[in-house]
Amino acid sequence: KDYTDPPPAPLIDAAELGSWSLYRAVIAEFIATLLFLYITVATVIGYKHQTDASASGADAACGGVGVLGIAWAFGGMIFVLVYCTAGISGGHINPAVTFGLFLARKVSLVRALLYTVFSATDPKRNARDSHVPVLAPLPIGFAVFMVHLATIPVTGTGINPARSLGAAVIYNKDKPWDDHWIFWVGPLVGAAIAAFYHQYILRAGAIKALGSFRSNA
Amino acid sequence: KDYTDPPPAPLIDAAELGSWSLYRAVIAEFIATLLFLYITVATVIGYKHQTDASASGADAACGGVGVLGIAWAFGGMIFVLVYCTAGISGGHINPAVTFGLFLARKVSLVRALLYTVFSATDPKRNARDSHVPVLAPLPIGFAVFMVHLATIPVTGTGINPARSLGAAVIYNKDKPWDDHWIFWVGPLVGAAIAAFYHQYILRAGAIKALGSFRSNA
Amino acid sequence: KDYTDPPPAPLIDAAELGSWSLYRAVIAEFIATLLFLYITVATVIGYKHQTDASASGADAACGGVGVLGIAWAFGGMIFVLVYCTAGISGGHINPAVTFGLFLARKVSLVRALLYTVFSATDPKRNARDSHVPVLAPLPIGFAVFMVHLATIPVTGTGINPARSLGAAVIYNKDKPWDDHWIFWVGPLVGAAIAAFYHQYILRAGAIKALGSFRSNA
Amino acid sequence: KDYTDPPPAPLIDAAELGSWSLYRAVIAEFIATLLFLYITVATVIGYKHQTDASASGADAACGGVGVLGIAWAFGGMIFVLVYCTAGISGGHINPAVTFGLFLARKVSLVRALLYTVFSATDPKRNARDSHVPVLAPLPIGFAVFMVHLATIPVTGTGINPARSLGAAVIYNKDKPWDDHWIFWVGPLVGAAIAAFYHQYILRAGAIKALGSFRSNA
Repeated sequence: KDYTDPPPAPLIDAAELGSWSLYRAVIAEFIATLLFLYITVATVIGYKHQTDASASGADAACGGVGVLGIAWAFGGMIFVLVYCTAGISGGHINPAVTFGLFLARKVSLVRALLYTVFSATDPKRNARDSHVPVLAPLPIGFAVFMVHLATIPVTGTGINPARSLGAAVIYNKDKPWDDHWIFWVGPLVGAAIAAFYHQYILRAGAIKALGSFRSNA
Repeated sequence: KDYTDPPPAPLIDAAELGSWSLYRAVIAEFIATLLFLYITVATVIGYKHQTDASASGADAACGGVGVLGIAWAFGGMIFVLVYCTAGISGGHINPAVTFGLFLARKVSLVRALLYTVFSATDPKRNARDSHVPVLAPLPIGFAVFMVHLATIPVTGTGINPARSLGAAVIYNKDKPWDDHWIFWVGPLVGAAIAAFYHQYILRAGAIKALGSFRSNA
Repeated sequence: KDYTDPPPAPLIDAAELGSWSLYRAVIAEFIATLLFLYITVATVIGYKHQTDASASGADAACGGVGVLGIAWAFGGMIFVLVYCTAGISGGHINPAVTFGLFLARKVSLVRALLYTVFSATDPKRNARDSHVPVLAPLPIGFAVFMVHLATIPVTGTGINPARSLGAAVIYNKDKPWDDHWIFWVGPLVGAAIAAFYHQYILRAGAIKALGSFRSNA
Repeated sequence: KDYTDPPPAPLIDAAELGSWSLYRAVIAEFIATLLFLYITVATVIGYKHQTDASASGADAACGGVGVLGIAWAFGGMIFVLVYCTAGISGGHINPAVTFGLFLARKVSLVRALLYTVFSATDPKRNARDSHVPVLAPLPIGFAVFMVHLATIPVTGTGINPARSLGAAVIYNKDKPWDDHWIFWVGPLVGAAIAAFYHQYILRAGAIKALGSFRSNA
């Protein structure tokens, strides 16, 4: 059977502002995003250094962790951090995830704004959305790993606006800023489509609205 | 003890045609197969581009994700997609899987045909076939990963007819079409053998039929 | 608390010989070992082919799956096959594992001999030995992966006598036969040490025998 | 809801000294650390050998397991060993972990000293600290894997003082000794920060002390 959806999160939840759990979630998301950027950017820098044309010997080309290693760094960090913060903040670590959950009314506007600033997350996601919660962080991490394998050679991969923004602020040259909007529009549009797909196809919202089929799922 | 087998799925299940869950399963399989092809084919294209003879510097040869990265893309995507669709459609994402489950009478003819067209799947598989259902998608994904490690250098690996057909339609040159039948006959024969092995050896069907041993398993 | 050990398996268990579950276990082990050898040896052959001195272009050196890919093939196959056969035969797929379990009296002599011939296994192992049975095949597979990472450059790695024998029989040249005894003595001695360590240290057998400490573990 | 914290471990727990479980834990940690060093150092040596400038052909540069393989060896071994020893000794395998747990009063001074000498661990950690204990060793191992991906090119990675000391004692040249203090100070300071973060942010200790917010987490 389909589960019973909890009532939609309110747009503005005043009680939330007085609760320590909201601030703890914001701190946990901030720390998680910091660690995420630190590890992944260090991996990319180490790789760039070793494949530098001026390097020689075994250090050149084959010495680094490779595109495969970079993809593992992104996917693996998301696995670890979602695992660690799922019970505290929900484990978003990505404003696009927060945006999608806001569209699906799983998270209040207050929380969504704070989470976007601090890349923070909603404590209810995992418990609600996955029917096999224990394992959920692993396929989430693998999905991130796969996307990096596929798109690093094409776009460099920027599915996380927080990560794209952080790297662009530090590097601060023309190249990362020129097309920076892509790494905000893409993930946010994708999150909106995912929220729609989840609500209206997987959760049968469309069919309930149309009332045209007998739902026995 | 052996579990009690549910009754075989009927060849034609008319009630199924009126249920939203069948169409939702077909949509979920279609989307999953689309994502599967998109990510894996993009990984292969990125790799081919970087190992192109005309590339130079660190990009050449060692720069790409390698055969190992391609094998991860296939295995990891199957892990993620089976995890996500197991509860919706059963997570086939491969007509050969549907064919094997049809032979074992786990899925009706109607569903098998629709699944083959849309690469869709049967919602009952995981709950039924595995005694450790939570982890099931992980070894399934690893099995796919292993097969690609072993056979990419030999045949390029085409254990999924939907993936072979999709790539051949887009690429549409002589090479992928000439031996295309192999990538349908091989997986389907393999699925038939697996269905036989499961029903008559692992589930002790053979021994029950012959009635010649005392089964205490 | 320590769990209560089941009574030791009898040396000769006549009832076992009349049970279908024994023969099913032997078949499952045989098939698992066949698949294990097929995938891993194919991976090694594909790698050797691509790093052949006569190969050229991107295929040379960097084109193959690498030592890392070979290590994944061995570790990943053990993960998948132990997962699949744990409930049927115990998931040994390695005569040295059977030998260690025989020393610890977890499996009868009859079963140990049949398992050594067919690389078959004991249906009770996982349920008995691990307190987190669901995940057990994953660390087992990872342990195999790690050992291959460390020792492929040194010895080529032969921790599984069945795999070493199979490869030597097919290849059948002097090199794999000359030092073949190492790949039987090493794993069997290691299995004996592991059985001793498990029984007398981890399960506190030594301390119970000496009666010199108060055990509150 | 937050769980109820058990009472802090006493500084000196005399009863512990007479219990077999303490000595079993010390032995288990010693063996685990031995296996950890053996496998990881062998992987590094094999890699160094293959990327040696004097090597030639496919063995050179691309032949080894690479930095990615080394990172897997460290992360994977921690996964396997924490999984195996979590129920026996707590699975520290790292004096810095013991130090952090001592600061958080999860482990007595006696045990902390013995664990630092033998790299031993506290049997209560996993059951206490993780709300999804079954999977806990996997993200721990992945975290180690990620850190190695990021920092091998920068510092060679020495997050485990026991591993840094062991390698320095055997190698015993000036280079590993000159900056050896870094690999003790860094991990221990990190463990102290982690203990503080866990106690005062995640477990809301700070907020309870200040009494300034209503905690509903």
